[in-house]
Amino acid sequence: MARKASLYAPSEVYPRMVEQMMRALCSSSDFWEAIDRANMPVVFAAAVVRALMEADLLKAHHGQLQWTPKGRELVEALGLRPFPHYQCLNCEGRGLVPPYHKPWAEAFMKYESHRPAPRQEYDQGSVTPATTLARVALMEQRGDLDGKDILVMGAEDDLMGLAIGLTRRARKVVVLDIDERIIAFEKEIIQKEGLTNIHPQVFDLRNPFPAEWEGGFDIFLTDPPETLPAFKAFIARGVAALKRPGAAGYFGLTLRDSSLYRWRKFQQEMVSTMGMVITDIIQDFNHYMNWGYHEATRASALNPAGAPPRQIWYKSAWYRIEALPGFQGSNEPIQPEVFESLYSDDEGVTT
Amino acid sequence: MARKASLYAPSEVYPRMVEQMMRALCSSSDFWEAIDRANMPVVFAAAVVRALMEADLLKAHHGQLQWTPKGRELVEALGLRPFPHYQCLNCEGRGLVPPYHKPWAEAFMKYESHRPAPRQEYDQGSVTPATTLARVALMEQRGDLDGKDILVMGAEDDLMGLAIGLTRRARKVVVLDIDERIIAFEKEIIQKEGLTNIHPQVFDLRNPFPAEWEGGFDIFLTDPPETLPAFKAFIARGVAALKRPGAAGYFGLTLRDSSLYRWRKFQQEMVSTMGMVITDIIQDFNHYMNWGYHEATRASALNPAGAPPRQIWYKSAWYRIEALPGFQGSNEPIQPEVFESLYSDDEGVTT
Repeated sequence: MARKASLYAPSEVYPRMVEQMMRALCSSSDFWEAIDRANMPVVFAAAVVRALMEADLLKAHHGQLQWTPKGRELVEALGLRPFPHYQCLNCEGRGLVPPYHKPWAEAFMKYESHRPAPRQEYDQGSVTPATTLARVALMEQRGDLDGKDILVMGAEDDLMGLAIGLTRRARKVVVLDIDERIIAFEKEIIQKEGLTNIHPQVFDLRNPFPAEWEGGFDIFLTDPPETLPAFKAFIARGVAALKRPGAAGYFGLTLRDSSLYRWRKFQQEMVSTMGMVITDIIQDFNHYMNWGYHEATRASALNPAGAPPRQIWYKSAWYRIEALPGFQGSNEPIQPEVFESLYSDDEGVTT
Repeated sequence: MARKASLYAPSEVYPRMVEQMMRALCSSSDFWEAIDRANMPVVFAAAVVRALMEADLLKAHHGQLQWTPKGRELVEALGLRPFPHYQCLNCEGRGLVPPYHKPWAEAFMKYESHRPAPRQEYDQGSVTPATTLARVALMEQRGDLDGKDILVMGAEDDLMGLAIGLTRRARKVVVLDIDERIIAFEKEIIQKEGLTNIHPQVFDLRNPFPAEWEGGFDIFLTDPPETLPAFKAFIARGVAALKRPGAAGYFGLTLRDSSLYRWRKFQQEMVSTMGMVITDIIQDFNHYMNWGYHEATRASALNPAGAPPRQIWYKSAWYRIEALPGFQGSNEPIQPEVFESLYSDDEGVTT
């Protein structure tokens, strides 16, 4: 089955992937929910589903994926069980609970519902407000908020920079995003709240940073595009913006648009080439709201059952990396060939 | 201050470490609690404390570390705040809640209180029963329990093998430990419970595995000694025991006995040399009960305030790594010079 599925996937599908997806399909007959449970790339999940369907083990029926009698026999013979529900409901599995009732968090919740709608051209798909608040809480807990100079590199549809600014605890927050609607939205709030430490500006991250940003920050945050060259370019630029050892970067990486093959390459880059150390990989920390343009993505076309997602299925892991003496970033322009592959390649399908 | 502290530490102390420890000392006047909050190696924390005391910023008083008036002024000038308490109380920060009321978990809780007492000569210091149950729950959730062949490499004072065996969900659990008391303890329970899938045996992990274990397991678990050569030898042997891509290893790594400098080296070894990918790093997942021999450790001598720990302060991160095609372990004997440094070096002080 793994060999068969490999024909439809960009890299080798090994038996564990088949087993994970089969278990997931015992947990849910919804393609998107199953991917969430299996925690694997859409393209690999779709390849497994296709191989199962061709072997007459699985069928699509009214938008759902159902085992055939033959499939059910196999599941029983293999002793496959649905995934358990051990995720902590109190913290949504993140391990920490943000301070929802502090004034900054309440202000954030008030403003966030008015944010501009996501746009496919910018790969936007915002995380839930609870995710944004939990990220800020984690930063505070790790000592990466108070008195720090913080650089938010894109993905400001998540409103991370705004949330940090509202705490009034950072020394400075520079927020970069290509979407002028979001920058304008935040500028208005900043004025209303009288915030002086947050500076949103329209910026295309394909361009190098001005010299004064190199080595200018304690913390960077980003949600990088997940092709290898784009990841390298984004993270290397974030690292180039860090001041000194002990400075840190935060970013999301999925197993929905990237395989573990690619994660390994990402990890090699960060640890060996850039001289960073990974301090945290928290799976399913980031929950993405279903975006308006789902039907227009390659992911949508890959679902053999055809139905759109009914609930949040797209999650990503939250990474924290820390600079050690000798760390090295890069502030080169992002080359056109990287730019072309910035938001999609053979594994990425949700953009 | 960082430069001063560096004189007393095995590697460079950078300003972030000083800041973290100062914040931690605003959170607690207890040396051990402060280390827990700062999440840094005991030797580095002690170096910072020593530098602070020599600068007349901090003093020891009745077993507690207190700011001097000069120290308090500095804390205020820097705007340092205590660490917040955002850790989720429902899951103790792990993100998942083990199924305490399933029969296997209840059986485990019944037996664990009778386990043999920890022994310093074997570097024993058991995790809490909740930690052991959470590890098993995580394995189930990740698809690393049902029908799997599992190898538990030492640290069985944590009773991981027993807990896995009690679920009756693994295909086979081989439990290795050098402490014959624990092996005998488990054999008795196995007989009483009529378990057939768990095989505890006395084994010195410095010896290579028999040939049939190489490539014989889906999962390995260990809590490796944290010197670089010992870590490499332990983890490489675990990796050598894995069957195929998709097989996984779990282990704890502290930031109490290892610095981030060393974590980076560990990560390079796993990702670049062994061909594994890191899928999870969950900080503070493992909570260690205070062990009977605390007073005899180097850590104890490093506390300038002299008082022993009052509550759990020793925690470690839980790693999960997964094998990708081409992964490579090593089953060589552990050399005498590695053996000598197995349980202590310039960073490790709790053994």
